[in-house]
Amino acid sequence: MMLTNQGQRIAIIDLGSNTARMVIMHALPGFAYRLEDEIREVVRLREGMTEAGLSEEAMARALSTLRLFKRFCDSWHVDHILPTATSAVREAANGRYFLQQVKNEIGLSLRLLSGEEEAYYATLGVLNEQPLANGFVLDIGGGSAQVAEVENHRFQRGHAFTLGALALTLRFIRHDPVTEAEVTAVQREITRQLDTIEWIKPQPKALLVGLGGTIRNLAQITAARQAYPLNTLHGFRLSRSEVEKSVQLLRERPLRERQKLRGLSSDRSDIILAGALVLQAVMNRFQIETIVTSRNGLREGVFLEHFWHHLEYPVMADVRRFSVLNLARIYNYQKAHVNHVRYLAGRLFDQLAPLHKYGAAERELLDAAALLHDLGTVISYNDHHKHSQMLIINSGLPGFTPREQALIALLTRYHRKGTPSVAGFTSLLQRRDKELLLRLAALLRLAEFLERGRTAAVDDITAVWDKHTLRLTLIADHYPAVELWEAERNAADLVAQAFNRTVILQSTAAPDSWLT
Amino acid sequence: MMLTNQGQRIAIIDLGSNTARMVIMHALPGFAYRLEDEIREVVRLREGMTEAGLSEEAMARALSTLRLFKRFCDSWHVDHILPTATSAVREAANGRYFLQQVKNEIGLSLRLLSGEEEAYYATLGVLNEQPLANGFVLDIGGGSAQVAEVENHRFQRGHAFTLGALALTLRFIRHDPVTEAEVTAVQREITRQLDTIEWIKPQPKALLVGLGGTIRNLAQITAARQAYPLNTLHGFRLSRSEVEKSVQLLRERPLRERQKLRGLSSDRSDIILAGALVLQAVMNRFQIETIVTSRNGLREGVFLEHFWHHLEYPVMADVRRFSVLNLARIYNYQKAHVNHVRYLAGRLFDQLAPLHKYGAAERELLDAAALLHDLGTVISYNDHHKHSQMLIINSGLPGFTPREQALIALLTRYHRKGTPSVAGFTSLLQRRDKELLLRLAALLRLAEFLERGRTAAVDDITAVWDKHTLRLTLIADHYPAVELWEAERNAADLVAQAFNRTVILQSTAAPDSWLT
Repeated sequence: MMLTNQGQRIAIIDLGSNTARMVIMHALPGFAYRLEDEIREVVRLREGMTEAGLSEEAMARALSTLRLFKRFCDSWHVDHILPTATSAVREAANGRYFLQQVKNEIGLSLRLLSGEEEAYYATLGVLNEQPLANGFVLDIGGGSAQVAEVENHRFQRGHAFTLGALALTLRFIRHDPVTEAEVTAVQREITRQLDTIEWIKPQPKALLVGLGGTIRNLAQITAARQAYPLNTLHGFRLSRSEVEKSVQLLRERPLRERQKLRGLSSDRSDIILAGALVLQAVMNRFQIETIVTSRNGLREGVFLEHFWHHLEYPVMADVRRFSVLNLARIYNYQKAHVNHVRYLAGRLFDQLAPLHKYGAAERELLDAAALLHDLGTVISYNDHHKHSQMLIINSGLPGFTPREQALIALLTRYHRKGTPSVAGFTSLLQRRDKELLLRLAALLRLAEFLERGRTAAVDDITAVWDKHTLRLTLIADHYPAVELWEAERNAADLVAQAFNRTVILQSTAAPDSWLT
Repeated sequence: MMLTNQGQRIAIIDLGSNTARMVIMHALPGFAYRLEDEIREVVRLREGMTEAGLSEEAMARALSTLRLFKRFCDSWHVDHILPTATSAVREAANGRYFLQQVKNEIGLSLRLLSGEEEAYYATLGVLNEQPLANGFVLDIGGGSAQVAEVENHRFQRGHAFTLGALALTLRFIRHDPVTEAEVTAVQREITRQLDTIEWIKPQPKALLVGLGGTIRNLAQITAARQAYPLNTLHGFRLSRSEVEKSVQLLRERPLRERQKLRGLSSDRSDIILAGALVLQAVMNRFQIETIVTSRNGLREGVFLEHFWHHLEYPVMADVRRFSVLNLARIYNYQKAHVNHVRYLAGRLFDQLAPLHKYGAAERELLDAAALLHDLGTVISYNDHHKHSQMLIINSGLPGFTPREQALIALLTRYHRKGTPSVAGFTSLLQRRDKELLLRLAALLRLAEFLERGRTAAVDDITAVWDKHTLRLTLIADHYPAVELWEAERNAADLVAQAFNRTVILQSTAAPDSWLT
């Protein structure tokens, strides 16, 4: 469905202090969505701002960019434009004048977000990406940085500080490389502002989610350093010591060298150090060792409020389940076949629990992989198991940890052939994940071949075993010839290996007379 | 469109002497098609065949397989089944009896193809894949091998020899490894049969296209040896000396070792040598140094006769153009945008001809890449240029040579960012292809960013130059602000590098008053 032109196109504009961005989402409201286009301009709206407000030059740059965005929306036949402006406009003495100018000249009514609203929308984005019940969200932008508190999956409160990477750089940094004194001045200002909010205090066990250009770039620098094997940063974990390492690098090097740093966008290399100091200070203040990065933020929050406008609160209760379904739906998955494979895989998993001893977490991985196993047919039937893996690595599965994403991708990779191997992903995996992969892949492959005819010919499976033998009895209306044949040839060996038993496959329905 | 459930599903069954195969094609007749599923069983119908005909066991295996295929068609909701049988049934004394049994028990009316029809359909498959005006087609199957002659893009005549890989193996080979005497016996039989057809004689300049399991596997062995960088064998070139090398390997090694040979299907490792000797003999007789391999064959020929039934002759006149369009259509390409990029890229190419001195062949590559440049958005918007390359490498572009496929894939890879590099593909490329890639990528990228707004804002481009400067004047109704801005930032440098001149971009339409 998503590859047709049905549905809505929604543009979200975010006129920030440093960057103006527009994303175009293609959505069937309430059903599925995907990013269709993105355009980004470094406008530096805050540059040259005085007590009189935004500078003429900065306003001209912003108007020019917004006009381009508007034309872009026209050509994409966008159904709704949701345009927002944040701290630079909010804090400028001539902010209202500027908004009126945008309306008169371009016909766009920018919604000016308050600091708390900015924190709210960033949090909405995060809550639809991360399974975050209670904790904090930190969004470091160009002009401001927001900290929000989440309780019971909802935004509770938030505060915007004038601690954006560009704002701090413009105010305190003059030298290249940055001097000791400048760093101290930035740190002193961060401390001064954080001190004003009492609820930002040590909570070493809390979950902290981070977003915005600074944190995304710090995550990218770290990912490049680690040869991180996934292609998205959904759920990437950034430790205090990795942040410290990056801060050191950024302090020591002149701009020219910073620009070459792998993972860092060159048009952010002049302001990122100030942002990194904010991240460091917030982590220190919370005494939190690791921040989980989110790809979602303000723009996605604004979009998701629209997408989920019919819900009581615009957050998907189970973000993991929705993210799996969203990916499957985008590629028009074959629901009947997929659901039967899920069912059979689940039945096998549950009955064999005394052998494998896994629980709900592993079952969820198996189910997600069963849902996504044929994803790769969108690329080509040949080698579609490899394409499924590649699609998951590239799209990411918001809500799942990097380890879980890797395991789901690997399970789809081995759902029909090949000897399960964790090669390339060991940095994300745990000690016993090799065995987990083998066992879950064996169950998924068996379920897949027991549904090879795509007719739900096998209604159910009963598993019994002793020390040497695993006996699987298929319950079927008619002799499931295709499924027995295919499962014997393509799956039985892997199941035997995974559970260290000889596998016997039989059917309650007897063979038709012709098959003597 | 192809990713919805619209259109027809067509199953083609090919009951051969060694293998029974069924492919399910998803097609919008006359518009586009793709392979949706494939199932393959090694039935060895010819095994145990005597003067009385097919053995009971072989017939039981075939019936069982065909029954599975039939059920498979039911579950896929196939609209048409086109079932065929070939040499084993044709030559068996009880062939008619077997066909009747299949009809009675399964309800499938297998069409029994004559040797000439077999050659005809294989040739139809090839003619829709390879731009073959005049030449020969060699199809080495399990039971028979067909040679066909093509004149003016049409099947002219064909002959089926009882020279299939399985037939020869069953008749002449008893030892493992194969003995000298057995090889000589096989070769003598090949010579004897080829001698009966006078038109198989030296034509060193003719084009010979090869297909069937033996040739496909020999190509795969060679591709594995060469670390071939494409993932399909459309147009792979197999030289006489590479075939010789493989024959030597297969002769020397016992079955157990042959089974491990990279690229060789293990269930073919016992019969491939006999097939390879046929290929060698035919190449020798024609005195042709290189055979071009085709992925299409009998099944595709039967399918394409259906797909093109409304044409005077069921062969696409320009297979290259159709294969590019087929791929674009499968992924529901954005026709208006793509066509404007093609137009602008073509205009640039034509005007700059005195500088680059390329001709129609290079223009076709540029046009194909322009048509396919956004293909990768089906995977994700982020990095879609990389996904476009990957999709082309995986799907292949029938009709184009491996070099051309690599260049088209690389052009899509560099259509929006990155420094064009031929790394990984040099084995397929020619000496000056690096420069070709740079220049065509520069033109494609410029065309893409001049159509960034997707509104055909730039009607046309005029290029003039001197030794130092390349001046590009955009003709537009209104000042094309997006396009100028984006082209300046994202394409101008690459064009400057490719044509070694400073690039000046300007527009006939003046800026709007607000842009001072």
